[in-house]
Amino acid sequence: MVIPVETFFLNPSAQGTLQARIQQMVAEGILSGRFRHGEKLPSTRKMAQHLGVSRITVTLAYTELLASDYLVSRGRSGYFVSENAPEPPDFGPLASRQDKVDWDSTLSRRYTTGPRLDMDKPADWTRYKYPFIYGQTDASLFDHANWRLCAMKALGARDFALLTQDQYDQDDRELISFIARHTLPRRGIIASEDEILITLGAQNALWLAAQLVALDRKTVVEDPCYPALRGLLRQAGAEICPVPVDQDGLNPDALPVDTKVICTTPSHQCPSSSTLPRARRDALLKRAADMGAIIIEDDYEFEMSFLRPPSPALKSLDEDGRVIYVGSFSKSLFPGLRLGYLVGSAEFIREARALRASVLRHPPGHVQRTAAYFLSLGHYDALIRKISRAYAERRQITETAILHHGLEIAGKGAHGGSSIWMTTPDGTDTVKLANALRERSVLIEPGAPFFAGPDRPSSFFRLAYSSIPAQRIEEGVARIAEALAQPQRGG
Amino acid sequence: MVIPVETFFLNPSAQGTLQARIQQMVAEGILSGRFRHGEKLPSTRKMAQHLGVSRITVTLAYTELLASDYLVSRGRSGYFVSENAPEPPDFGPLASRQDKVDWDSTLSRRYTTGPRLDMDKPADWTRYKYPFIYGQTDASLFDHANWRLCAMKALGARDFALLTQDQYDQDDRELISFIARHTLPRRGIIASEDEILITLGAQNALWLAAQLVALDRKTVVEDPCYPALRGLLRQAGAEICPVPVDQDGLNPDALPVDTKVICTTPSHQCPSSSTLPRARRDALLKRAADMGAIIIEDDYEFEMSFLRPPSPALKSLDEDGRVIYVGSFSKSLFPGLRLGYLVGSAEFIREARALRASVLRHPPGHVQRTAAYFLSLGHYDALIRKISRAYAERRQITETAILHHGLEIAGKGAHGGSSIWMTTPDGTDTVKLANALRERSVLIEPGAPFFAGPDRPSSFFRLAYSSIPAQRIEEGVARIAEALAQPQRGG
Repeated sequence: MVIPVETFFLNPSAQGTLQARIQQMVAEGILSGRFRHGEKLPSTRKMAQHLGVSRITVTLAYTELLASDYLVSRGRSGYFVSENAPEPPDFGPLASRQDKVDWDSTLSRRYTTGPRLDMDKPADWTRYKYPFIYGQTDASLFDHANWRLCAMKALGARDFALLTQDQYDQDDRELISFIARHTLPRRGIIASEDEILITLGAQNALWLAAQLVALDRKTVVEDPCYPALRGLLRQAGAEICPVPVDQDGLNPDALPVDTKVICTTPSHQCPSSSTLPRARRDALLKRAADMGAIIIEDDYEFEMSFLRPPSPALKSLDEDGRVIYVGSFSKSLFPGLRLGYLVGSAEFIREARALRASVLRHPPGHVQRTAAYFLSLGHYDALIRKISRAYAERRQITETAILHHGLEIAGKGAHGGSSIWMTTPDGTDTVKLANALRERSVLIEPGAPFFAGPDRPSSFFRLAYSSIPAQRIEEGVARIAEALAQPQRGG
Repeated sequence: MVIPVETFFLNPSAQGTLQARIQQMVAEGILSGRFRHGEKLPSTRKMAQHLGVSRITVTLAYTELLASDYLVSRGRSGYFVSENAPEPPDFGPLASRQDKVDWDSTLSRRYTTGPRLDMDKPADWTRYKYPFIYGQTDASLFDHANWRLCAMKALGARDFALLTQDQYDQDDRELISFIARHTLPRRGIIASEDEILITLGAQNALWLAAQLVALDRKTVVEDPCYPALRGLLRQAGAEICPVPVDQDGLNPDALPVDTKVICTTPSHQCPSSSTLPRARRDALLKRAADMGAIIIEDDYEFEMSFLRPPSPALKSLDEDGRVIYVGSFSKSLFPGLRLGYLVGSAEFIREARALRASVLRHPPGHVQRTAAYFLSLGHYDALIRKISRAYAERRQITETAILHHGLEIAGKGAHGGSSIWMTTPDGTDTVKLANALRERSVLIEPGAPFFAGPDRPSSFFRLAYSSIPAQRIEEGVARIAEALAQPQRGG
């Protein structure tokens, strides 16, 4: 491959002769990893023309670089980066530059300070033999062939002109229509198109909702809950009130007075898996109405109801327009897809659409259209059935192994799901447990990050069966039991 | 197509007999547009089982719906939505629901109040014969075939496992590597991987940068500028100071004292097309350093330099880490792609990454990988050359027509671009001009929204040649000249 001549620029503030500066430019390109072994340099003629210098200057610079083994010459075919050229330092930060900006005083606020739960999961989790982790779909279950066909259809001539356009603040009409006609009715929700907004995954939906309603408002979160929820509420300026959940989820009587926003996962509490009973749903809506509060319903994992039909969404009972509903295809299609949706009153959705337009305009059209085809051709339903069967089998094996090895379940969800919420004999620090297990190729998720501080219970952990093959579950659970039986390591 | 039985739910708060409620449920589904003519209903057996009612109740409900012509029966093949069923009211808002939330007091702030320039462009612009509009790529120029091939490659087995995963806060390494090694060096910028963040288009990059550095800071914007920039700065809590640009762009001497953030388009001022000369670049960096200010450089349209090689980015002169660089593939690949990038100090990028993770996690993996292939296989460079040739031709024709018809150019950019900034004889209101031209199938963009209020000049307009076929330009310009020659219509 020839390195394009356009990628060469002489550093205008560098010292020295032209020839020395050209040498430096090439050497820095090699040292920084931009130019790689075997790549061909532009000819002396082209380089001279591009830089506006004489050809002999470039030739002399190249000759010096030959002598110092940065380059090799292959006769008439030209100059190449030498195999013996110094290795780049793994593309790390360039030491030569000195940052003169005081970022502490320049940044309006820091976003790197919160807990980084997800990021603490090893990125190379596929290399572990017993990955009991949540949120990473098992690629072997995905209907790759039909997804490809839908993607090709969406890349076809019919859709292409549409998809290449800037949609400003609009969503894909076919996707919206499918969600309105098929996805939401299954949750008991009837919504018109102007009550739906496509988002970049559930995270983006929760973020938009929080920005719109949570500023300076007393905002209830379930304790424990999805940790990133507390982070995005903090960023939105919410006054966060964690309310402990019990075996039946959030207790409406436990809500503080003057609550203005209630974030809840009624279908499938995250992470304890409980389902909010009908009586509590009615009570929750009534208390919210009395306090003039908004409810943000994260309808987390409703598709994974393989044991029992899912209860309708809380939103289906909402006569007031008080419930903002968050749905997602990401987890069940695949997390890298990044597609979710918000359902709420038209007035709320209008504001959410305007905020989304300012933040990112719209989710990529091609991804939306591909999903619309995948859904409308029935592949999504078939996929859900396939995943459900696999999860049902894995759950059965997991429960049997848990029973066999005497582990303790804290919550497992009557409908199904992809994980079991576990507890351990008093005093076990599951962060240490997880670290010890990692050395034995077992990944579990410590429970503490799900709780609001400062006295987080350390004895819970989440055992997800969505990514681990069925035949490895028994041995994985056995290893957890062994580790629990050992005296705790570390401080 | 059979309507899935799971989409049926009895309204729990509805009155009446079970049979009446089933009838109402089906009729509402038809009236709301969810069930369409010819679609098949679930069998009475399935429906009865799903709802937990007796089969005879369902049969009686269906029979009533036959009588009222909502359904037709086709003997043993079952019940279908009748061709004569009432038409749904175009899927508008459902009148039956009463929103009881006071959104005025509930919403923390409104986002729909700002100018909606982009949204004022007709969504059906392709139906106009002379669309001199910006930001919509001519689909006929796009290399559709190779994009499809790259998309297929990215959907192949090798990449698929990777792309289905949640990447948490990480970007596609191949895309980052290509940007670092090839794209940025062409702009004179050497950056390491931790100094680059992929964003959901340039809009998202500007939004992230503004959130991080503009709160309560005196922030200079060029006047005129990209209108959405002022909107996202306002949302970020910036103190906005518009500074008029001249033929050479932003004048560093005109910056107010204590400016802390400077938003600029040095390569190609938006919308006036001027290029910031080298002396002003040095002066701008020096003044910024003296004031301790951050510069946000939007390197807008640098690829469209078909008349003269582009000047290196301002960022290439930045020794201090003071310049935050915004680049984008969206406009030149296609706007619906939504891919851009931020380049800045590693510390800044770390914060931007954390903020992005909270807002949307990461741009979809498949889109990133497809772009990485399209770039690294050389298709992007070829596309840019093809677009440049087309634009060069169109620009030539446009300039000739402008000269021929006696129109007046305010700024046209020495390097190229995709539009010409026009002015009109004193007193012409280009909003009225644009409305009059629209009736003659000509679209132009009035200049007023680019200016900061309240005394926006009304006499400018932007004439873009990126979407209009070459052979229509002459006639389109002729029509503009005709309209300008007419006495102004309206108030």
